[in-house]
Amino acid sequence: MPAKDVIHDAVKNALIKDGWTVTHDPYSIKYKKVSLLIDLAAERAFAAERNGVKIAVEVKSFLNPSLLNDLKTAIGQYEIYLSYLEIIEPDRKLYIAIDQETYEALTSVEGLEVVFQKHTIPFIVVKIETEEIAQWIN
Amino acid sequence: MPAKDVIHDAVKNALIKDGWTVTHDPYSIKYKKVSLLIDLAAERAFAAERNGVKIAVEVKSFLNPSLLNDLKTAIGQYEIYLSYLEIIEPDRKLYIAIDQETYEALTSVEGLEVVFQKHTIPFIVVKIETEEIAQWIN
Repeated sequence: MPAKDVIHDAVKNALIKDGWTVTHDPYSIKYKKVSLLIDLAAERAFAAERNGVKIAVEVKSFLNPSLLNDLKTAIGQYEIYLSYLEIIEPDRKLYIAIDQETYEALTSVEGLEVVFQKHTIPFIVVKIETEEIAQWIN
Repeated sequence: MPAKDVIHDAVKNALIKDGWTVTHDPYSIKYKKVSLLIDLAAERAFAAERNGVKIAVEVKSFLNPSLLNDLKTAIGQYEIYLSYLEIIEPDRKLYIAIDQETYEALTSVEGLEVVFQKHTIPFIVVKIETEEIAQWIN
């Protein structure tokens, strides 16, 4: 099993505070001979709906000195996980969870907007110290 | 400068044998504050054309025990580099170069076809021992 991301627990607690029930930690999916482990899966029931909203969350700390190197891995993970989720559980939405400082760094580099214009990755931006969700980027 | 991939020279020599002129090693591109280094750029002149065919080549050894982990990075790199090449030099086609054994491993895992159906990554498949191109996958 891969090592837990350093901000894993902060993201999990932030989801719980936000009203989500964490149903899988990690969330394992299997398709033929391919096995994937996504960090978290969570559900939230809404009064007006019979079925709750379901999400899968891959937690990414950007530890690399180069933002771009971590972004490569994050995009690759997102794209691969999405390929399988669309087949296995198309009603579960995939997010990448990152800390607020990383999100601010990513959005402040002039020219990096090119990547996000082409790849509309949904982010959950988390305040690590207070374990709160700062923003959902859809 | 990032470390050269272990199969870098074999790929470069295979391109030269195949009639390509390696014009950049590495090939650096810059867009606003974003700088990228792609492993190789090459050109091949065709008699019938005034302008040659231009390619950029990112060389990837799959050294990770998990094929899927290396594939994540490869897809992330391909997607990010492509975002910028399309702006800066849209007539240069981007390839990922991998060794023949890796290509065979990737195509033999039942279920992994899902990723390639969704992401049509152009590959240059190289025989490392003989430094020859085995296949172009477009």
